[in-house]
Amino acid sequence: MKEKTVGILGGMGPEATWDLFGRIIKNTPANKDSDHLRVIIDSNAKIPDRTDAILRNGVSPVKAMVETALNLEGAGADFLAMPCMTAHYFYDEVQTRLKIPLINAFTLMKQNIDQHFSRQVKVLVIATSGSIQSGLYTNYLPEESLVFPGESIQEDEVMDLIYGSRGIKAGYTDEHNIERVYRLMQRYQQSGISCAIAGCTEIGLLLKNQPSPLPVIDPLDLLAYEAVRLAKE
Amino acid sequence: MKEKTVGILGGMGPEATWDLFGRIIKNTPANKDSDHLRVIIDSNAKIPDRTDAILRNGVSPVKAMVETALNLEGAGADFLAMPCMTAHYFYDEVQTRLKIPLINAFTLMKQNIDQHFSRQVKVLVIATSGSIQSGLYTNYLPEESLVFPGESIQEDEVMDLIYGSRGIKAGYTDEHNIERVYRLMQRYQQSGISCAIAGCTEIGLLLKNQPSPLPVIDPLDLLAYEAVRLAKE
Repeated sequence: MKEKTVGILGGMGPEATWDLFGRIIKNTPANKDSDHLRVIIDSNAKIPDRTDAILRNGVSPVKAMVETALNLEGAGADFLAMPCMTAHYFYDEVQTRLKIPLINAFTLMKQNIDQHFSRQVKVLVIATSGSIQSGLYTNYLPEESLVFPGESIQEDEVMDLIYGSRGIKAGYTDEHNIERVYRLMQRYQQSGISCAIAGCTEIGLLLKNQPSPLPVIDPLDLLAYEAVRLAKE
Repeated sequence: MKEKTVGILGGMGPEATWDLFGRIIKNTPANKDSDHLRVIIDSNAKIPDRTDAILRNGVSPVKAMVETALNLEGAGADFLAMPCMTAHYFYDEVQTRLKIPLINAFTLMKQNIDQHFSRQVKVLVIATSGSIQSGLYTNYLPEESLVFPGESIQEDEVMDLIYGSRGIKAGYTDEHNIERVYRLMQRYQQSGISCAIAGCTEIGLLLKNQPSPLPVIDPLDLLAYEAVRLAKE
């Protein structure tokens, strides 16, 4: 049976795109090159910032996202994965313009939580303010399960960790930033929280292969598994 | 000035493709996503094995390489880089079918050796038997500078390290395989050799960020620098 070709609607950000590609390679059983999947990536770093569009009325990324997705469709991708959670705010506007399916990482997260945790689970969401305030998490996941950092922690710690001048998007994936995520989790460890969502893909990138005070649901892993599963279906 | 879009003619192998993408990201000065380059990748792991074609009269990879390169050209790449040294055997057959330039990693290696080493330099080539026997190294680099492992070391050690069931293409990039490359270099350290070429991209991948008994010329690094330079030219 012919394997499908994976498409990555990337560049949001480039590091997360690179990391998803690597996880797809690692999750594919292979002894030689040709055992691997064909993966086509458009890492279009010029797509306007998603958080800026959602929170500050910035330039909409939809036009560039659709153009990039259609580029991948034209190049032969059979389905797409998008390694940026905030960009899922525009999921419907992009999917509706495509002939091929775009995997929805929020649907995967919901399935993962439903399968592995009880109904009473409490989940800490570590994500950009844009994706939190957009209502993405409360739209897809049961609201009573979600715990968001308070406003000052969200702005001073989480957003600085992602967007700050020594943040992950500026290339700092060092011990110091890993420590900052740990301290954040430790604040919530005692309050009945069962796991954390690495809701900004850069957070998952930072924590990969690291021990962690809380179990981490990493949408990049879920996307990688799903991409391999769909390609071999 | 408009930056150019980088294209990666990939899948030969997927790990090297992933690694070149990562080095391009790391080599691009950036504080936010949009500072990064647009990079389009076709990681076409189904391209027939290059060594097999050169040494054992296997299926030629040229048709699939050209199809993949044209796919990238159609998707908007302004130039291409190819993270497989052995595939450079087919460089002219691919370049002639394209409107856009394909970077030649062997030309970059020659420039690098000319710039950084004296005329009397001796260079150990760690590469696939296919790329060595194809005459690629002796065509592009001064023959009197090149040292190749003897036939039994080449087959039993180098090829097993790359293609063996516990080799790099099978996903083993562990301490044990790093040790094997070190032992190989140490054999030649006393015989006036100044540096080693990581002639199979998987060898460069293995040695990345590792101390090494000999300085290593890594074509993946040269490709990454050149891609960033060309894109910003």
